[in-house]
Amino acid sequence: MKGQTILRVRYEETDAMGVVYHANYFTWFEISRTELLRKYSLSYKEMESKKWYLPVVEATCCYKSPARYDEEIIIESELHFSTDLYFDFTYEAWRKSDHKLLAEGRTRHVCIGENGRILTKATRNIKKQLFGVS
Amino acid sequence: MKGQTILRVRYEETDAMGVVYHANYFTWFEISRTELLRKYSLSYKEMESKKWYLPVVEATCCYKSPARYDEEIIIESELHFSTDLYFDFTYEAWRKSDHKLLAEGRTRHVCIGENGRILTKATRNIKKQLFGVS
Amino acid sequence: MKGQTILRVRYEETDAMGVVYHANYFTWFEISRTELLRKYSLSYKEMESKKWYLPVVEATCCYKSPARYDEEIIIESELHFSTDLYFDFTYEAWRKSDHKLLAEGRTRHVCIGENGRILTKATRNIKKQLFGVS
Amino acid sequence: MKGQTILRVRYEETDAMGVVYHANYFTWFEISRTELLRKYSLSYKEMESKKWYLPVVEATCCYKSPARYDEEIIIESELHFSTDLYFDFTYEAWRKSDHKLLAEGRTRHVCIGENGRILTKATRNIKKQLFGVS
Repeated sequence: MKGQTILRVRYEETDAMGVVYHANYFTWFEISRTELLRKYSLSYKEMESKKWYLPVVEATCCYKSPARYDEEIIIESELHFSTDLYFDFTYEAWRKSDHKLLAEGRTRHVCIGENGRILTKATRNIKKQLFGVS
Repeated sequence: MKGQTILRVRYEETDAMGVVYHANYFTWFEISRTELLRKYSLSYKEMESKKWYLPVVEATCCYKSPARYDEEIIIESELHFSTDLYFDFTYEAWRKSDHKLLAEGRTRHVCIGENGRILTKATRNIKKQLFGVS
Repeated sequence: MKGQTILRVRYEETDAMGVVYHANYFTWFEISRTELLRKYSLSYKEMESKKWYLPVVEATCCYKSPARYDEEIIIESELHFSTDLYFDFTYEAWRKSDHKLLAEGRTRHVCIGENGRILTKATRNIKKQLFGVS
Repeated sequence: MKGQTILRVRYEETDAMGVVYHANYFTWFEISRTELLRKYSLSYKEMESKKWYLPVVEATCCYKSPARYDEEIIIESELHFSTDLYFDFTYEAWRKSDHKLLAEGRTRHVCIGENGRILTKATRNIKKQLFGVS
């Protein structure tokens, strides 16, 4: 399962070095994985109505080249089918104009309920819905 | 009722112009009014446990001089006793090193309950608690 | 001169009240006025290459109704031709699904050069380019 | 080289899940390493006046427990002396009230000059200044 999102660098996302502040890539990754889930008819909002949440338990980013204000950025995200316990997304950020790779990232998520407990069954159900496997 | 908060400009708060991004002053104002209310033993968290919220219904800022990374900023806030319907805070942001005025702002707040309805009685109660008047 | 931008609420833009944090509307306004200027073939980046900047000197927002995560928001912005000394933009934010008005705002900008001095001539030139008047 | 920073969770840093948005920990880490460098008389600003920058080339965070609005957070950071090519900082975030571990992180930095090229000599000089070794 792969998806692509295009976004434009906001002025607010730049810093005094003239480039995008590093923490903002994690926000971009979040936008991209939300779009990916929506594409496969699983919206965050829908899950939240069931009181299921997919918090980030691990996040990593390697920065290759800086992004600048007003540039269009392609975020590619991929959901990986691994164990029943968590979800892994990987990401690549490219500048659209010259297809330069800007960053690579990864986030790990668990599915939790309202009480904060990990929902193994819900995780399995979501994966089934997404990957069409039982 | 007046209070003062000192904070240091975060790198994340700067933009490609090399100065603090204008919207961040509203976050600083929020920090300052929270400190002010805490000083008068009324914490946001306490109110939220009662399901009372003080959302911003109006916000204004006039920018006089830019703030830069790593500078220490003094935020002065003042709560104004006006009508029973809302709260008004005014703010001044100063650079600590040379006491240069950076910005002046104002926010207006109403007290709402969980259902989003305006709580006139709660507003009155909070004001009584803060100003010691009935 | 009017323009419209559609954006989707990011999770990062929400706060613990479950709605969009008030300061983020100013970021949305910035996105919208940039789009408007781009539409009239005047990009921020272009201006920055000439070392012209349009910093915000005043910003105001009135909040009517809260925006929530994942909602699509329409930002309408309008540039007003007033004096030669500054630019005024006004904004309206609507929820796309039910066309509910969420907020109204205004920002005032001056054109400054690299040294931070106000460029009256540049302001006039930009206005001429935008409005086609001399 | 170790240091400690205490900060209070800002409302702006929370999200609709009622907890601190994950990307904000990276901003906290930045504040903490800046404090650490300042303590050892090496301020970011000083370096920037020499046109030396320490951009993040890698960033990782493992989230253990959520932080909430208004909580005081202790960020412990440590600078590691490794090769001449880069700097590694590790971080721990604790809730002050109950000393619960909230997150652990790591960032890697290189020293670059104005043209974006990696300054091996400057890296070595900074390390010498910090660690007192040649």
